[in-house]
Amino acid sequence: MFIDMKETAKLLKEKNKILLLSNSHPDGDTLGSATALAYALKQLGKRVAAKCGDRIPECFDFMFNGMENEEFEPEFIVAVDVADPKLLGKEFEGIYGSKIDLCIDHHGSNVIYADRTWLEGESASTAEMMYLLLCELETEINPQIASCLFTGVATDTGCFRFSNTKIRTFEIAAKLAAMGADTYNIIQVFFETKTKTYAALEKLAIEGMRFYCNDRCAFITVMQDMYRKSGSDESEVDRLANLPRQIEGVLVGVTMRELKDGSFKASVRTHGDIDASAICGRLGGGGHMGAAGCTLYGTKQQATNSLIKEIQDEINRFLAE
Amino acid sequence: MFIDMKETAKLLKEKNKILLLSNSHPDGDTLGSATALAYALKQLGKRVAAKCGDRIPECFDFMFNGMENEEFEPEFIVAVDVADPKLLGKEFEGIYGSKIDLCIDHHGSNVIYADRTWLEGESASTAEMMYLLLCELETEINPQIASCLFTGVATDTGCFRFSNTKIRTFEIAAKLAAMGADTYNIIQVFFETKTKTYAALEKLAIEGMRFYCNDRCAFITVMQDMYRKSGSDESEVDRLANLPRQIEGVLVGVTMRELKDGSFKASVRTHGDIDASAICGRLGGGGHMGAAGCTLYGTKQQATNSLIKEIQDEINRFLAE
Repeated sequence: MFIDMKETAKLLKEKNKILLLSNSHPDGDTLGSATALAYALKQLGKRVAAKCGDRIPECFDFMFNGMENEEFEPEFIVAVDVADPKLLGKEFEGIYGSKIDLCIDHHGSNVIYADRTWLEGESASTAEMMYLLLCELETEINPQIASCLFTGVATDTGCFRFSNTKIRTFEIAAKLAAMGADTYNIIQVFFETKTKTYAALEKLAIEGMRFYCNDRCAFITVMQDMYRKSGSDESEVDRLANLPRQIEGVLVGVTMRELKDGSFKASVRTHGDIDASAICGRLGGGGHMGAAGCTLYGTKQQATNSLIKEIQDEINRFLAE
Repeated sequence: MFIDMKETAKLLKEKNKILLLSNSHPDGDTLGSATALAYALKQLGKRVAAKCGDRIPECFDFMFNGMENEEFEPEFIVAVDVADPKLLGKEFEGIYGSKIDLCIDHHGSNVIYADRTWLEGESASTAEMMYLLLCELETEINPQIASCLFTGVATDTGCFRFSNTKIRTFEIAAKLAAMGADTYNIIQVFFETKTKTYAALEKLAIEGMRFYCNDRCAFITVMQDMYRKSGSDESEVDRLANLPRQIEGVLVGVTMRELKDGSFKASVRTHGDIDASAICGRLGGGGHMGAAGCTLYGTKQQATNSLIKEIQDEINRFLAE
């Protein structure tokens, strides 16, 4: 059942012992939105815990400063920015996957698994929705909460660069800045700082970039041995996803990385009206119009070929229009 | 004589046959601010021309769509975002350098050469000041003018990433977006599109990056032969300036490029309280706290050494505090 923002606020006000769940392999939006909501619900006197099925990278530590995750038997479980219970991670999917009472999400590809879903597929981030929800709940947005939300707003728009960035995005960013969000340091950490290991990985990735589909598709492949050569690891690989699409004339940028089990995870980024979620959807994945992902099996060549085929089809469709 | 925004508005209202001048080697702020002011003054029924001493790169063409630069003997000359008459370019400096009636600028290093100067050293861009001025003038900010101003706001803050980005920056960006600025395409052009030749130049630059001052300074040098190897040219080199400072632990990033006459032009970018304009000021240049530039002479090694000496001094000063 779909509900709207006001109904979501009303529902949350009625509940207690609320467990908030984020995506595994967590990003700034799923964690920033969940922690912001957790602080807001605590202000309303509720018992709240915010959990994630994976280790949380250090760069997000500031979100959890002062957060005491209480132990209790949850009475109401909320998935935040989670499009599919599979994305909770294996363990959490097993425990909570079929028991999600409410999902708050902005992924058009959401599989609608929760009892109630507040979905805004046009929103650039779940954090934008969460900002509006907190305004509706009339809780205080202090500088820490503003920083949590700003992290989601900034990271899910590539720091205001992706096509999902709307007037509302800038307006909410301005409000959060005025409320004390540490905008400069957040942007430095997530966009303007490269570890030396990441810089080395990026160099290897750019050296190995290949072009397909008459140069309309740029393709980076990150193999496990590139982590060894650069000293980097999977925690740093997400930032590469935006590089291939930046090349002039490229309509589809792909960053495909080899996982430890030999399968491949692909991030697809597109320009204009080329639908990344359609490309990935046909390969069992999903996401947004401009940014989507999927998992691929077989050899590197097989994985590349199956992806290129779908990309070529989508480009053909686009050019035929 | 220093004047404020209201005095600037009053002064402009009294004048006619107004010539607006931008920096040579023009960027988004000097051109966006000048064109926005030109359209506003035209709305007030004035005869206006906006000129630049250099060829204007194609990426700025949209600012001049529908702008008819009338020929007239100027009665009032305004320099926009120009910190020093030298920056008008040799020809324009000769003709207009000593005749500037009004300078509107945000460079703390402005040499105060105009008859009247409205200077806001804390403003992230001249475009932010210009937005406020246009509000004061009560002229319409249509989508084209909003796009001119947004270009200045975005480019001078590295798309909201530099430390000069303030609450006001986000607020003005949001207003301009709501007024119809083509935010997405502007950001794509200036930040998210790399020509293949630029990508090749960037690759060469990153391969040649050197570290000094215990890895606190990262240094890129672009020699003339790198343009030949990459197919790139000087029009694309500015974007490199931000790369060295991105490396973790680096406090000062330098991009030094060889000019055709064998001299070197350095762009210095710093973090936190390290003063780039002090470093460059001691070498005859200037700019802002976080971003400044200077020209250097001698061999590549001599130019590098003199810059590194000043950087080391500034880092020592910073660490001693």
